[in-house]
Amino acid sequence: MKKLSILILFFIISLLLAPNLAAQQKFVPLGDFTLESGSTIKDCRIGYRTFGTMNPEADNVILFPTWFGGTSKHLGNLVGPDKLLDSARYFVIAMDALGNGVSSSPSNNLHQPQSAFPLFSIRDMVNSQYSSLTQGLGINHLYAVVGGSMGGMQVFQWLVSYPDFIDKALAYVASPWQSGHGRLVWETELAMIENGLAHEVPLDIITEQVALVQVINAYTPEYRNRQTTPAAVTDFRHAYVKRFSSNFRPYNWASQLRAMMQHDITLSVGDKTESLPEIIMAETFIIVSATDHLVPPGPALELADIIGAETHIFSNDCGHLAPGCEMAEFVEIVHNFLH
Amino acid sequence: MKKLSILILFFIISLLLAPNLAAQQKFVPLGDFTLESGSTIKDCRIGYRTFGTMNPEADNVILFPTWFGGTSKHLGNLVGPDKLLDSARYFVIAMDALGNGVSSSPSNNLHQPQSAFPLFSIRDMVNSQYSSLTQGLGINHLYAVVGGSMGGMQVFQWLVSYPDFIDKALAYVASPWQSGHGRLVWETELAMIENGLAHEVPLDIITEQVALVQVINAYTPEYRNRQTTPAAVTDFRHAYVKRFSSNFRPYNWASQLRAMMQHDITLSVGDKTESLPEIIMAETFIIVSATDHLVPPGPALELADIIGAETHIFSNDCGHLAPGCEMAEFVEIVHNFLH
Repeated sequence: MKKLSILILFFIISLLLAPNLAAQQKFVPLGDFTLESGSTIKDCRIGYRTFGTMNPEADNVILFPTWFGGTSKHLGNLVGPDKLLDSARYFVIAMDALGNGVSSSPSNNLHQPQSAFPLFSIRDMVNSQYSSLTQGLGINHLYAVVGGSMGGMQVFQWLVSYPDFIDKALAYVASPWQSGHGRLVWETELAMIENGLAHEVPLDIITEQVALVQVINAYTPEYRNRQTTPAAVTDFRHAYVKRFSSNFRPYNWASQLRAMMQHDITLSVGDKTESLPEIIMAETFIIVSATDHLVPPGPALELADIIGAETHIFSNDCGHLAPGCEMAEFVEIVHNFLH
Repeated sequence: MKKLSILILFFIISLLLAPNLAAQQKFVPLGDFTLESGSTIKDCRIGYRTFGTMNPEADNVILFPTWFGGTSKHLGNLVGPDKLLDSARYFVIAMDALGNGVSSSPSNNLHQPQSAFPLFSIRDMVNSQYSSLTQGLGINHLYAVVGGSMGGMQVFQWLVSYPDFIDKALAYVASPWQSGHGRLVWETELAMIENGLAHEVPLDIITEQVALVQVINAYTPEYRNRQTTPAAVTDFRHAYVKRFSSNFRPYNWASQLRAMMQHDITLSVGDKTESLPEIIMAETFIIVSATDHLVPPGPALELADIIGAETHIFSNDCGHLAPGCEMAEFVEIVHNFLH
């Protein structure tokens, strides 16, 4: 009787803790992980958090990779009932991209710290996720991969790296290859970090410079003019830089910048206009923002045209953050596509 | 006979040299020039170049103030037959703004070098031009004042500082007061200069940072994507920075940035919506670019609405450089307004 009580108590506690336990930060250890360049990340580990439950058929798994500088913790804000990804219906795996400070990164790899961390690509991020899913979690098929911004770049790479691994793919405010303007912005941020580190500029100043280039391009001039009066700009600027700095590590940021700067899914497949429709098997939905100054929509729309993917174009003036400015519609579009 | 020959020869040489002499760099010495702040620029001098000839009625004089970082030499490229300002018809005075490295500036004032140079405003630029015209050149009325970008900010200031001094005013890609986005861009450039100088960052790195923020905002993403492939961005970036650096002096750039950041013609007149139509007397034409990310068009269009000025809106994707992308139409619009 006492034993039973303890068992019941343990069961109740487990139930109470379950949602939190599920969303806890976990890691898949990959050992020494070989990159496409031939270099190796020593003691590589990939972070993730899960939401919801895998069904018996294992056909409700969604991979949700992180955006530039983002973490699986950030992604958690978009998962839940009535949210972008419904964890009552899907088993959502939010997975930390290489270089984000949670998965192996310049900031946390004791064997290869900071500048000693090897260069990696978006392809390497996807390969590390594939290994984590198959070797670490025993998952051999995904219902969908969904991602925004750099997360969407990973979605596009998944389409060509592991075409038969996924049924559906949805990328928002992302790009399958670079644009001139996007590349110029990334090169600018990288130059600021590299020059700052080379000349021992204080970290808070490097941080401020990168943050300001980021915020100038993340929104449109129209949005900024509407939101912030000239007199309020100085306060806005300081507040933005402060918020940005909490998650900014210069070598990490630079490592993901370099990955995005080289990103081009056609590098995996040869000629972009001919091979892609044959290679890509997943049902694909592409969401862009017409006013996106950070990840211009051109290449994503070009890909949609090439492979015949469905698209939605947000036309509000929120720039890269356009989906968030029409959150209800964004959620509805994603739900409709996944259902 | 010999005397006459020499005189004739001298006359011929004078005629041959005349156009060049006229466009030579000249200066008006203003002595110690008091700014609106109460500070004084010691031994102040204002640079200018003239093109064409003043007619006997002295009613064909056009003042052409310089844009941000620009000089009267640069403006000369826009003056001539079939050019923006027709020097066969008008006596054009291209005048160097305070802080541009030709007129008194942090880089050239021996009494108040670099950081010792006093803060000045767009109003002070206009006051120094007024003094130069009236005291130095004996000119007491202008047919027109024409200017682009920061030159247009001076045009707007002329409208309220010396309303009965000018018959016509034309400002292009300029602003009578700041916008949130424009102010954010200027603050970003200023922070890069101030932090760079404070931490002894090498000048070429400060220059590169400011140049890149400038070029990212001077054009639109669409224009950059059309003009520069991702693979060409690194070369483009280096070439732009090199061209930019030839004319970049950090304290000069910062001094004009500060002037633009404080710019607001309503500071001279009180309430913007009520007093302006009564104060402004010149016939005014305002040209903006709908895609301008450096000097957003909102405030200029707002002013046009308030005072009932004629407008032209360029809608191409060249951003701040929009008039140059439709040069023939731009020239025609300006000619029609001035004729």
